[in-house]
Amino acid sequence: MRIAVLGTGMVGRAIAGRAAELGHQVVVGTRDVDATRDGEWGEWAADHPGITLAGHADATAEADLVVNATNGDGSLPALDAAGAENLAGKVLLDIANPLDFSQGFPPTLSVVNDDSLGERIQRAFPRTRVVKALNTLTADLMVHPRQLADGDHSVFVSGDDADAKRAVTELLTSFGHTDVIDLGDITTARGTEMLLPIWLRLYGRLGTALFNVKVVR
Amino acid sequence: MRIAVLGTGMVGRAIAGRAAELGHQVVVGTRDVDATRDGEWGEWAADHPGITLAGHADATAEADLVVNATNGDGSLPALDAAGAENLAGKVLLDIANPLDFSQGFPPTLSVVNDDSLGERIQRAFPRTRVVKALNTLTADLMVHPRQLADGDHSVFVSGDDADAKRAVTELLTSFGHTDVIDLGDITTARGTEMLLPIWLRLYGRLGTALFNVKVVR
Repeated sequence: MRIAVLGTGMVGRAIAGRAAELGHQVVVGTRDVDATRDGEWGEWAADHPGITLAGHADATAEADLVVNATNGDGSLPALDAAGAENLAGKVLLDIANPLDFSQGFPPTLSVVNDDSLGERIQRAFPRTRVVKALNTLTADLMVHPRQLADGDHSVFVSGDDADAKRAVTELLTSFGHTDVIDLGDITTARGTEMLLPIWLRLYGRLGTALFNVKVVR
Repeated sequence: MRIAVLGTGMVGRAIAGRAAELGHQVVVGTRDVDATRDGEWGEWAADHPGITLAGHADATAEADLVVNATNGDGSLPALDAAGAENLAGKVLLDIANPLDFSQGFPPTLSVVNDDSLGERIQRAFPRTRVVKALNTLTADLMVHPRQLADGDHSVFVSGDDADAKRAVTELLTSFGHTDVIDLGDITTARGTEMLLPIWLRLYGRLGTALFNVKVVR
């Protein structure tokens, strides 16, 4: 599959690296290709020779599946740059969380309660099939879940399109996830985005990001 | 221990019944004793002869530990009725969630993000030692956790007073809980109250309330 990963941070690199390892054709999208190349990107890219770098629009144009791995604040601008036409009809795996650090730590959510970033993105790009997933755990666990309790923990998918959720679930399963729970339509992204406050407190309390929740039933 | 349980609903009865079973002296507080007695209370009370019913203030006056098992909307009025003097110095286990059903299902939270019901209660009763706990699972699992995965799932305590959290943790452990996680001060109640949206969606999806999260680490 041709996968475009928008975002060059920890999450973007984790998804891109793992998807390439699994045989997908991966391009990473960035706002400014030259600025990214001039940064710390070079070292990572040298270790991942099959992965190309492009502007958001070029990265998205030829993709079968697009991953939003930008910051919450940067998500709508990045997707605007990717372009509604380029995104039309495609599955968009949205991993971003609308964290607001402007008042310090712990951050609050800039979209919350009766709305979510996932819904905002779906409304802004109605022809795109948005699936919220993987926003509830740390990057390394998103792509290598078996390192924790042999994968015995849960992740969630939220979205309006059943086929798109199936495609994302297959990708997550290929990463090693064993318990992908379909919560329902895109409004259920409120629930997973609102997990962030307790996630951040547990992170502080446990002293490691290598944890996740399991829905015991 | 003398325990006052404010609230006669499902949560109040579950906590009261279990605490009495474990040998505590239990009184249940209600807004209107006569109205409660005239309702469906009688049948339950007949099965729990050791448990007495009283107004919120009378119930609270002699208690060592007070449990807020009222609805989110009713919590501050019930605690006002219990009285700041009666609550002074005491441990208050706050189980309520600030759910707002005025726009239908799923409810939103009436306090959220940069505040929580737990914090509001702590601010309103500064001499009371508020501990938020048990608001993240169904009543029957609060008090009989071993019925699910032999108790291999997590609950949380949030509060400013270490001794109060210890007292609540002991009570939870006596109920059968095996993994009580101290999240930190009362502001961490935001995180557990914000679990409600995903809890409600999982409830719909799984078709049972007999589930809980486990923090896998």
